[in-house]
Formats: sequence, C-alpha cells, structure tokens
Amino acid sequence: MEQVVRLAHGAGGVETSQILEELLFSRLEERLKRVEGGVGVDFPDDAAAIPIGGGRYLVITVDSYTVNPPFFPGGDIGVLAASGSINDVLMMGGKPIALLDAIVVEEGFPMDDLRRIVDSMTRVLRDEGVALIGGDFKVMPRGQLDKIVIATVGVGVAERLILDKPRPGDKIIVSGYLGDHGAVILARQMGIVEEGQGGGLASDVRPLTRLMLPLVEKYGEYIHAARDPTRGGLAMVLNDWAKASGTVIVVDEAAVPIRPQVAAYANMMGIDPLALASEGAAVLAVDPAVADEVLEFVRGLGFKDAAAVGEVRSSERYKGYVLLRTVVGGLRILEPPRGDLVPRIC
Amino acid sequence: MEQVVRLAHGAGGVETSQILEELLFSRLEERLKRVEGGVGVDFPDDAAAIPIGGGRYLVITVDSYTVNPPFFPGGDIGVLAASGSINDVLMMGGKPIALLDAIVVEEGFPMDDLRRIVDSMTRVLRDEGVALIGGDFKVMPRGQLDKIVIATVGVGVAERLILDKPRPGDKIIVSGYLGDHGAVILARQMGIVEEGQGGGLASDVRPLTRLMLPLVEKYGEYIHAARDPTRGGLAMVLNDWAKASGTVIVVDEAAVPIRPQVAAYANMMGIDPLALASEGAAVLAVDPAVADEVLEFVRGLGFKDAAAVGEVRSSERYKGYVLLRTVVGGLRILEPPRGDLVPRIC
Repeated sequence: MEQVVRLAHGAGGVETSQILEELLFSRLEERLKRVEGGVGVDFPDDAAAIPIGGGRYLVITVDSYTVNPPFFPGGDIGVLAASGSINDVLMMGGKPIALLDAIVVEEGFPMDDLRRIVDSMTRVLRDEGVALIGGDFKVMPRGQLDKIVIATVGVGVAERLILDKPRPGDKIIVSGYLGDHGAVILARQMGIVEEGQGGGLASDVRPLTRLMLPLVEKYGEYIHAARDPTRGGLAMVLNDWAKASGTVIVVDEAAVPIRPQVAAYANMMGIDPLALASEGAAVLAVDPAVADEVLEFVRGLGFKDAAAVGEVRSSERYKGYVLLRTVVGGLRILEPPRGDLVPRIC
Repeated sequence: MEQVVRLAHGAGGVETSQILEELLFSRLEERLKRVEGGVGVDFPDDAAAIPIGGGRYLVITVDSYTVNPPFFPGGDIGVLAASGSINDVLMMGGKPIALLDAIVVEEGFPMDDLRRIVDSMTRVLRDEGVALIGGDFKVMPRGQLDKIVIATVGVGVAERLILDKPRPGDKIIVSGYLGDHGAVILARQMGIVEEGQGGGLASDVRPLTRLMLPLVEKYGEYIHAARDPTRGGLAMVLNDWAKASGTVIVVDEAAVPIRPQVAAYANMMGIDPLALASEGAAVLAVDPAVADEVLEFVRGLGFKDAAAVGEVRSSERYKGYVLLRTVVGGLRILEPPRGDLVPRIC
C-alpha cells in the first residue's frame, strides 16, 4: 500500500473506495457493519438506516464539508452543509427531521463570515422545517486549519427505504442541469474567475425536498435507486450502480443536460463535465412502466430541465460498466473518475 | 461583538457558550430547537434525543475531534473519537448501538498512522459491540490542515433519558481520577514531556459502557444528572449544572481524586486541575437516599477510585454558583473555565 495519503484518496472516486475498503471495511466483521435489520457500511448508499419499529427506519448520514472557497457564486459552506446532508437523507427515501453540526474554524476567522455561514445554515433549516438538535464548536490555532470545516449530520424517518438497486430496463432520469457546483468551485480554485464573480457559473446547491418527498410519496415503489451526484458527478453514481448491481448502464451523452458555459469551462480545464459535482440535482433509476409519467411529474414539480438520459441493461460482457453513446455516435466506456483534480469541492 | 474568532471560543468554557448563544441559539426559533417531544439545543446536555415510539428515544451526538498530537500516552485520536461519542450517548442514558465517522486528513499524512488510527477506532467498536454504519473521507491539500480531524456521530437507544437536572440534596459522585487526559495533552503541547514519553502521565480515554449500563439499569431513576467532564473539566460540568438548575453546588476539594503527578503538572503549568479534561470519567448527581449505595455499586463495577465529592444545595444568595471548600478550610467560588490554555485537547 502507498506510504502517504494523497489528494485523490479524498476525491470521492476510485481511490476513495479503495482506501476505505482496504483500511476499514475489509477489516470490520460483518456484525459490525450495520445495526441488525438496518443498512450500514455493508451497502454503498447515501445514508445509513436503523429500524425503529412499526416498519419505519431512522435514516442518518454524516459528511465533512471542506469546500474552498467557503463563499462562492450561488451559495456558501453553510447552505452546502445543511443542503448536502438533507439531500442524503432524501435520496435514501427519508423525510428529513433534524440536523446536528460540528464546526471547526481557524483562529482569526472573521466573525462576520462565521455569522453569515451560520445564518445560511439556519435559513435552510427554517425553509425546510428541520430542527437543529445538537452540535459542537472548536477552534484550531492559526495556520493549523485553512478557514473552516463543518461536519453535518442529517437525520430523517423513512417508511420505505430507497436502496440503490437499479434493475435491467430501468430508465435513468436526472432532475436538471448537472455539474454547476463543480464547475464554479473548480473555476474559482484555478483562478479562472475572480472572487465575487461567477463568470456565468453558479452553484446549484439547494435541498431537494420539493422534488423527493412528493416523488417518493407517489412513485416510491418504482424508484429503484436515487442519488445526488456530488463528488465524482454522474460518472461516479452510475459506475457505483453498475458495479453494485452487476448491470450495464448506457447513457446518451446528447441527452444529459449540461449548461453551455459549464461545458465550456470543463473543456477549458480538461475535465469531463459528467464527472463534475452537482449539489442540487438527483439521479434516479425508474421502473420503465412509469418512467415517462415520472419524468412529467418531476417537470411538473418545477424541475423543468429534468431529462431521461439512459437506461439499465443486462449484459454479461459489459456488466459493471457504464457505456456512453457519444454525440458523434459511437459507444465508449465511461470510467469512474480518478485523481485529484478538484480538492475541497464540497 | 468581537471581530475574529479566538481560541477561547472553541475551548468549551464560558466563551464557547457565549458565541453559540449569540450566533446560533438566540437566532433560532423555538420550533427549530428540537424534534417534537425530544431534546435538542434548547437543553444543554451531552446529546440530543428523538422520540421513536413505545416510550423509547433515539439518542444522537456529534463531536469533531481535533486532538494534537494525534498519538499520546494512553491512546490516540481513534480511541478518543470512538470513546468520546459512545460516552456522550451513555451520559444521556442511552445504550450505544452505532457510530458514523467523517475523517479529514492532510495530504501527505502517513498511511501507517492512518491505519493505526482506524484500527484503534475499530478496536473500540469491536470491544463495545457497536456497529460502524456510515461515514465520509476527505483529504485537504498540504498545509491546509494540521494532520487529522475526525467527526464522530454516536447513536444509541434509551428507555429513560438522563436529563441533567440536579436537585438540592443530591450528592455529586465522580467515577475516578480526574484530569488525566488534559494533563498529558497539555504537557505534550507545552513540550514538558517528549513524544513517546508520558512523564508519569497517561490519558484516561475509554468508553464508560461498563459503568453506565449497569448503573442506569439498577439506579436510573435516582441519577439526576450525568456528564463526562471533557473540555473544561469538573469545573465546567458543575457550573453548567448549577446555572441550569438554579442551585449551588458545594465541592470538597480534598475529596476530588486527582493523581499527584496530574496535580504537580497542573501547578507547574498554572492551571486548576479541576478544569482539566477527562475522557474516561463520569460525574453524577445522585439522589441522597441511595448515594452511598450507588458509590459502593460503582466501586464494585471496577471503578475503585470513585468518590463522593460534594452536594447540591438550594441557596438564594449563591444560586448558579459552584463553591469549593478548599483543603485549607475556607469556601471560594469555583469559576467556570475561561480562556484558551489548551487548544485541541479533544
């Protein structure tokens, strides 16, 4: 194994899966991978689940948000931390009810900035009717932490879990434009756009409650997988799904909604826009019997750019792979993202 | 308000309470401070609680562990992160069932060190029969984070919550020697003891399951408050309790178990040992009808240095204060800790 931790290990792609498997999951006994009857690290998904009786589950998730810069066009680390954890609860089929947060800041961090960040978090809580039930606050000496890191815990309740198990025949639906968040953070980190400027780019960060709650209520049984494509973008989500379900997923490149300016910046920076993070979009695997109806329903909820972008198939030869039907017509393998191009994307 | 965040704001003392109240709690509507029927940021305690039916509660807590150095005599950040969150669940009356963790490391962190830390965490999980159900892993570029920060979520189930409401007449019982963890970290940070050396000091970090589960089962209704005295030590716990309950708490200095070497280092560093953190000790407020019996029971569980150190009284004049009966005989006010003497203690 390697001698030191590299940026790629934390990028949410192939190397992250490898380091977690090698250091942690492979060394943990089966009985310690979940609460009995629930979902834990034994199943790759957005969140964990604990049965609480009456056929219900408590859904719980934690993420550390390290985004740099903490203020960006379209949002800040406070909105991101609250929305990201709410979205992970939603993608598991849960109704978010509470958050906890553990904030660590650098000594000398401007109090006004901290206030803006906390206000952003509480604004999301207020809009969503989600309670803040606990947390932690620590300060690290100057030079030992760059600005701020926020760990956020999302808690929800689910009557029916969405476990990510796409089936052959399912249609892949995305709720709107992809890659907006990743493009703007990357452009800021590379100095392509200046502070306070978006260069036509803005993060899509927002909670997806208005999408997921009505969708789960009406079509829950037909949603075979749901994930928000954060680190690693659509490419990572679909590769995870194909690998875990032993299917092949075929994506139609021309159908994936990417804003022209996102595509242009991605090209300029040499990155596949399909690997860029979104923070306010969902990817769904939907039973073909209702897929057209679901797409219309999603658009009717205000997600007018939602699109069907591909489908799940069975294939002995390509099982575990994602195939991209390119705009010029051929099929190529869409690899899971590797490397460390965008540290501190979320 | 101040212009920038200072170390003291994160030290767990008076300034931490102030900044959280000012930035967060005072700006949050009552309905957003708890899940209905549960316990949230409206009540100062170790953890939050969510009712899950059948008279039971889910107990949940999050803390970010930033301890520096990450390896210290008696433990490391892995043991600390697992034990600390397990203990917070226990102090609320919960039986720990699951952990989640979000690890952030600096690029270039030695893989062997990360493996040791992860192994320490999983050893605690294994010993305690607690499952690891989720988490997150991120890497920050070199120079943007000093080594490693771990946010850990503890989850448990309680039939009866221990809400910290000490009553006049209650005896204050501590489960053993106090301040061991704070003393060794402080001595290491100040360079008084070298790496790999303890100078006669060692952290007390450990889960308190073997203490709290039998105690709650047998004497739950008589335990009116329970807390592990981490940041701010015994002084902070008792001041919190006196203030929240409008009582005065009188402590007998001579009765508080402090190891001679801890007292000696604390003196050398000009710090009150009563304000030093423990990571494997409990402070209890116990109904006087059973206090002697509880003390014997605790000792019988293997906590042979447990001691009764004071009592809760009603007093108009001193309500909200902690009074220390000093070894030389007089009474003085024991102030809640202030300032920033030990950053990254836990």
